[in-house]
Amino acid sequence: MSMTMTQKILAHHAGLSEVRPGQLIRAKLDMVLGNDITSPVAINEFEKAGFDQVFDKSRVVMIMDHFAPNKDIKAATQCKQCRTFARRFDLENYYDVGRMGIEHALVPEKGLIAPGEACIGADSHTCTYGALGAFSTGVGSTDMAAAMATGETWFKVPAAIRVHVTGALRPYVSGKDVILHLIGRIGVDGALYRSLEFSGPGLKNLTIYDRLTISNMAIEAGAKNGIFAVDDVTRAYVEGRVNRPWTAFEADEDAEYEQTIELNLDEIDCTVAYPHLPENAHSASEGGDIAIDQVVIGSCTNGQIADMAAAAAVLKGRKVAPGLRAIVIPATPAVYRQCMQEGYTDIFLDAGCIVSTPTCGPCLGGYMGILAAGERCVSTTNRNFVGRMGHVESEVYLASPAVAAASAVTGHITHPKEVMEA
Amino acid sequence: MSMTMTQKILAHHAGLSEVRPGQLIRAKLDMVLGNDITSPVAINEFEKAGFDQVFDKSRVVMIMDHFAPNKDIKAATQCKQCRTFARRFDLENYYDVGRMGIEHALVPEKGLIAPGEACIGADSHTCTYGALGAFSTGVGSTDMAAAMATGETWFKVPAAIRVHVTGALRPYVSGKDVILHLIGRIGVDGALYRSLEFSGPGLKNLTIYDRLTISNMAIEAGAKNGIFAVDDVTRAYVEGRVNRPWTAFEADEDAEYEQTIELNLDEIDCTVAYPHLPENAHSASEGGDIAIDQVVIGSCTNGQIADMAAAAAVLKGRKVAPGLRAIVIPATPAVYRQCMQEGYTDIFLDAGCIVSTPTCGPCLGGYMGILAAGERCVSTTNRNFVGRMGHVESEVYLASPAVAAASAVTGHITHPKEVMEA
Repeated sequence: MSMTMTQKILAHHAGLSEVRPGQLIRAKLDMVLGNDITSPVAINEFEKAGFDQVFDKSRVVMIMDHFAPNKDIKAATQCKQCRTFARRFDLENYYDVGRMGIEHALVPEKGLIAPGEACIGADSHTCTYGALGAFSTGVGSTDMAAAMATGETWFKVPAAIRVHVTGALRPYVSGKDVILHLIGRIGVDGALYRSLEFSGPGLKNLTIYDRLTISNMAIEAGAKNGIFAVDDVTRAYVEGRVNRPWTAFEADEDAEYEQTIELNLDEIDCTVAYPHLPENAHSASEGGDIAIDQVVIGSCTNGQIADMAAAAAVLKGRKVAPGLRAIVIPATPAVYRQCMQEGYTDIFLDAGCIVSTPTCGPCLGGYMGILAAGERCVSTTNRNFVGRMGHVESEVYLASPAVAAASAVTGHITHPKEVMEA
Repeated sequence: MSMTMTQKILAHHAGLSEVRPGQLIRAKLDMVLGNDITSPVAINEFEKAGFDQVFDKSRVVMIMDHFAPNKDIKAATQCKQCRTFARRFDLENYYDVGRMGIEHALVPEKGLIAPGEACIGADSHTCTYGALGAFSTGVGSTDMAAAMATGETWFKVPAAIRVHVTGALRPYVSGKDVILHLIGRIGVDGALYRSLEFSGPGLKNLTIYDRLTISNMAIEAGAKNGIFAVDDVTRAYVEGRVNRPWTAFEADEDAEYEQTIELNLDEIDCTVAYPHLPENAHSASEGGDIAIDQVVIGSCTNGQIADMAAAAAVLKGRKVAPGLRAIVIPATPAVYRQCMQEGYTDIFLDAGCIVSTPTCGPCLGGYMGILAAGERCVSTTNRNFVGRMGHVESEVYLASPAVAAASAVTGHITHPKEVMEA
């Protein structure tokens, strides 16, 4: 029978010739991922269940990124528990302070996931790796615990929504605008437990970083995963990072989709999601009245080198508005280093930003830029829920690095063209 | 009558021709300083007292450094209160994210204090500026509140201890070793409410950064202040930073000291203060059995460019020990930038350190490197009290940047010569 990309990957990992939406399957996993918040819970469950080995010491990955470098005693205790576990089982991919970056940027960068592979991670934004044509999704810590031991987990095969991409992005528009636009159209439950499958002639006009951002936020439309067809863009990124064989699974031509969404890139403008849901999409040009206190550029959604480049292009030779705090957080040590080499760090510092060591930090109200009551932040992160970045009376506006940088310059929500073509 | 340096500065600021130890005086202040933890308390007192102006908008200085960039909602709320106050009174020297550095590094760097001036700060380590021949001391937030309004405060004139400095520092030995050695000799109450006054032929062999570190930790011997005679080293540092007239107050030859301590720099070795008091001084060569989990290089004590250079000299071409977290925190934006320009940042990153944006962070258990139970840290900070950097069962070993860097390489307390001459 005919299957979508996601269904083919799941069938392959379940050792089945076909799977159908709604079917419960048990699938082998190529990677099991946890961070410093979710791994301790998984480790407790792992030990409670009496497991005494991990299925593959190279494929159980733990990355200390949320509250690391340790923000408090609790975080320190959690990281210590992960470190002890990693030593006990000789985990090859344990990333601590000095090696660690934000998990969903570090995993693809290090080639820990490849097209056609299947993985779970105890973190909502594990869906990021769909950008590489992998099946990846977030799970709870208990599922992580069992999967660390067995290398398998169960899934209910998702039905699929096809996103048929055409056209090309306009100047200043990026993957972040695409996904905010899409969530704006379909809503935060618009793809509930569906796989969002991106294909079509417009894909070639989306960089791997655009795709990583888009897949990263698939969960914000409720999707089980968000996956891109594998093409030359994928191959160029994977080459030199993944040194094991991998397979590109293509959707059958007559695969069944519950729905097809036409996404014409030409029609997408710079987009900002207002509080308190990612679906509250507005044009970046509408926000001139909205004064802001802080800008955050980084996170698993927009902390890659392309994101830093986009922000630097806007901030070059310009200054952050007086009284505004601008916090730039490269997602990995390699991105941090490349920012220095490309001169972006100098641009950020000249503009009056600070540059943090890689961390999830402010995105989830961790540290490194928490908001007080009444404060507003334009942020390149992925969630603008009530209290997400601090006080319940603070507000987060989700945007691209270019929009965030332009807004940092003016002090209010701003379309990059207003700054760049002024 | 005859007076010491401190007594002369206090007499001058009190408008008196002489003062005597124990005398209560009211003195004019050249600067009143607060940070993001102490200023909010002072602002509350200021408002409660009904004050409606500050004595000089250029001389009330507020620096957000302890828990900034905001580590949590409380920190965000405190910074917001300071920001609002700074706007209300148009404070010229309000330093927030993007401009801010660690207060006791930023104040001398920006020329906010000069030789012969008198200042108070609501922070214990305000005594740092004695390195420039100023009188500076830490006070409570209530004293800060009144001084912000009046530009004056009261002091009990301290009796003095002369530290007569001879000789020159041996290789790898720095100001940190000097002050740890001295506190080791006299104890944490060895200079209780006394002024520690440094003079003698050895002064010329102490850089301004050595002196800043020594004065910074005068409080750890219980001193009211720690002050250096002004010389060409002072003048070279102050030139180009301070653009107002200033006076070098010299001690009279027959000034009275309660005690004279002979400090021969030749006799000082690299020194580590073991938990849980700065007086627990040991040679850095004795610590080979003490395995460590973390190294912190930074703080108001050792976050200057000379400190970064000393750490970089040890770390160049070497790697941090496996499993050890090494956290480098340049104290100000200028130091952060200079580390990049001099190649120190590359050295730190190559070695496996992380480099943080300026913050007090871990020193006082704030964030950016908090310790779990049972963990040990070699730190260039100033206090190793129980629980200072995290869990009450963690341990802090105070050391110089060179010792901290050498210990990061080996994973245990290490004299730099063991690494450098291996």
